[in-house]
Amino acid sequence: MSIIEPKVLKGFRDFNQSEMAKRKHVEKIIRNVFRKFGYAEIETPILEYSEILLGKYGDEGDQLTYNFVDNGDRAVAMRYDQTVPFARYVAANLGTLVRPYKRFQIGNVFRADKPQKGRYRQFTQCDIDIIGSENIMSDIEVIQVVVSVMRELGVKGFKVKFSDRRFLESVLETAGVSDNDKAEVITCVDKVDKIGVEKVLELIGDKADKQVMKEILERSGDTESRLVDMSEYETDRIAEIWEMICELGIQEYVEFDPSMARGLDYYTGMVMETFVEDSEIGSICSGGRYDNLLGMFSKEVLSGIGFGLGFDRVVDVMEEQGLLDEVEVVAEYLVTVFSENLRAKSLEVASKLRAGGASVEVYLGDNLKIARQFKYAERRDIQKVVVLGEDEVEKLEKEGLLLVKNMISGEQEEMAI
Amino acid sequence: MSIIEPKVLKGFRDFNQSEMAKRKHVEKIIRNVFRKFGYAEIETPILEYSEILLGKYGDEGDQLTYNFVDNGDRAVAMRYDQTVPFARYVAANLGTLVRPYKRFQIGNVFRADKPQKGRYRQFTQCDIDIIGSENIMSDIEVIQVVVSVMRELGVKGFKVKFSDRRFLESVLETAGVSDNDKAEVITCVDKVDKIGVEKVLELIGDKADKQVMKEILERSGDTESRLVDMSEYETDRIAEIWEMICELGIQEYVEFDPSMARGLDYYTGMVMETFVEDSEIGSICSGGRYDNLLGMFSKEVLSGIGFGLGFDRVVDVMEEQGLLDEVEVVAEYLVTVFSENLRAKSLEVASKLRAGGASVEVYLGDNLKIARQFKYAERRDIQKVVVLGEDEVEKLEKEGLLLVKNMISGEQEEMAI
Repeated sequence: MSIIEPKVLKGFRDFNQSEMAKRKHVEKIIRNVFRKFGYAEIETPILEYSEILLGKYGDEGDQLTYNFVDNGDRAVAMRYDQTVPFARYVAANLGTLVRPYKRFQIGNVFRADKPQKGRYRQFTQCDIDIIGSENIMSDIEVIQVVVSVMRELGVKGFKVKFSDRRFLESVLETAGVSDNDKAEVITCVDKVDKIGVEKVLELIGDKADKQVMKEILERSGDTESRLVDMSEYETDRIAEIWEMICELGIQEYVEFDPSMARGLDYYTGMVMETFVEDSEIGSICSGGRYDNLLGMFSKEVLSGIGFGLGFDRVVDVMEEQGLLDEVEVVAEYLVTVFSENLRAKSLEVASKLRAGGASVEVYLGDNLKIARQFKYAERRDIQKVVVLGEDEVEKLEKEGLLLVKNMISGEQEEMAI
Repeated sequence: MSIIEPKVLKGFRDFNQSEMAKRKHVEKIIRNVFRKFGYAEIETPILEYSEILLGKYGDEGDQLTYNFVDNGDRAVAMRYDQTVPFARYVAANLGTLVRPYKRFQIGNVFRADKPQKGRYRQFTQCDIDIIGSENIMSDIEVIQVVVSVMRELGVKGFKVKFSDRRFLESVLETAGVSDNDKAEVITCVDKVDKIGVEKVLELIGDKADKQVMKEILERSGDTESRLVDMSEYETDRIAEIWEMICELGIQEYVEFDPSMARGLDYYTGMVMETFVEDSEIGSICSGGRYDNLLGMFSKEVLSGIGFGLGFDRVVDVMEEQGLLDEVEVVAEYLVTVFSENLRAKSLEVASKLRAGGASVEVYLGDNLKIARQFKYAERRDIQKVVVLGEDEVEKLEKEGLLLVKNMISGEQEEMAI
């Protein structure tokens, strides 16, 4: 029998116990915030009919979608994002969803992208959307949810940058951009963080008035002064959002960014991105308002607002900031087993400790030498070892006291149980 | 633009908010029990190289494995179970894993099986394994974990049935079964629950002594008496496990089943299955001890013990028993919005309630008529509605009292905040 090399596909990852403990810790906090704002979780399958997914993400997206023909000759594709399956879900359930409809999804998506640092072929997205509300309260809530998630996670130096597509449209109009050039100019504007103001102006060339474009690209001053400086453009909705952001007392985490475009044609109102200071990682949470969620799945036009949070990026940022160093991975206690006669006692003590809420291992090794058991605890980073020989069992039964060795200090302490 | 029918692939499922709330509730309890016993979570990718998965599950398994060639001409396959990827993981990390190594995995697996009631093409498995311990304490712990999971979930009438392959081997020897006939006889024995004792004996024919086989197939008496009646066979290890099960006080949930075979060649020691009384659903948790986990991934021979719990079956059983009726799906509170002027107040109250731990929605609809907002709460099953007009805001500011309407009783109550 030949040995098969136990390798993982490029762009895919195993997560070991330490990584998983951290990921589940982060996921739990995110899920909890979404729930607290009244979003309800749904899930769609990993596989869909190809026709559901293809043709929705442009040519590049189609190329990156894993698709194949299954044994039943069906053309199928793996989930590329959670938005298109959500649109399919809404279209299929139009009659029963109470609007405004608020949902979230946390799941894996798959893209046959070129793997590189921070870019994987299987990664996790966390999406929220509100369907059927034009109310500006929705715009505010979406920003508020991002801020709450970041604060609950303890992320330092994050900033939610937002704008409105209508603001940008009014700027482009003043700058004399023709309808034909709009898409190209927006693509250039979107590059400002990567290549800088001068280079963007060069790229735009004579397609727009340089002075007008320079002002939004330079982003001088704070949100308040930007709103004053740019009051000649469509800033009403932005000012209204900003006012409520201040009322909520979260203005330190939010900023109006007049240069924000977001390449997608998709967005029609508020747009947002979230960045972390001193981090190379790009936007960790992006979204905005769109006019037509359902697209090809229904003739009904449903607008909505939402965001996608890049779970893997958030975990990376938290690692950078040392926020995940303390996440508990292993059991709190190891209960030793001294002999065959005493093993029932060990099981009993473990059960009692678990009933008190602790995570507890009973030593399962074949060699019962106590030094071996301490060594096991040390190698597994288990900090408290319950010593349970004849004498300790007697003490436990008479006085209800347990002997616990702290593997860090080396000290033994008695503990009531 | 033509409309694409928003349909889901056969055998795949959307989970709506009610289903998801229930699933996440169940998953949380299972994960918590695994952790409390010191199992650490890991995760492997959904996609693997085909050569990792194919040839491990027999011809039928290979046929049911979703596999295809990706854009980079790699033969890839979707996760069929979590055991083979786990073996691949262990083989790749042999040097760093501290043994006994205890891990769990909760994840989706994919099988191109004929969809039918309770059988899906994407479903969820929860697996635990202990690697590198021959100690009987591992056998006991595995049974104890299943019992703990079922009790924590509140499942009524479950029974963990266990036996040992060596017991069955000794029975077959006494019954005079030739080595050539063993596999076939075991396959027949495995059918006893489906077709009954007489039919199984007929199928076995003259391949085994009828009287010997009848005794184990009939399973008369309780575990204690079975152990006495069958003491001529290999029951030492079974008796030792049973003794500790009784010491742990969980004997009402466990039973020695002398007819248990478990078709797979894979198992070599203790084997177990878990059934629920008065339920059509088959074993919801099966496993046992095996001699060679790593198989083709390494020359090292590593034995282990573990089980796979069928998450979807557990959810189905709990639904049958009405255990998931009370799972909270929606927000606890809806905070109404009376007017544009008062919306900041509504956001503030919602934030305060959330800070207290509640799940809270602020009304996001475009039409602020109060009757409309009550209607929304009713349709969404939100039970408490915070009424926040001019008068209520004044009361809140002066006395710190909030007016809350209970949508079930119809009564309004004041609540300190």
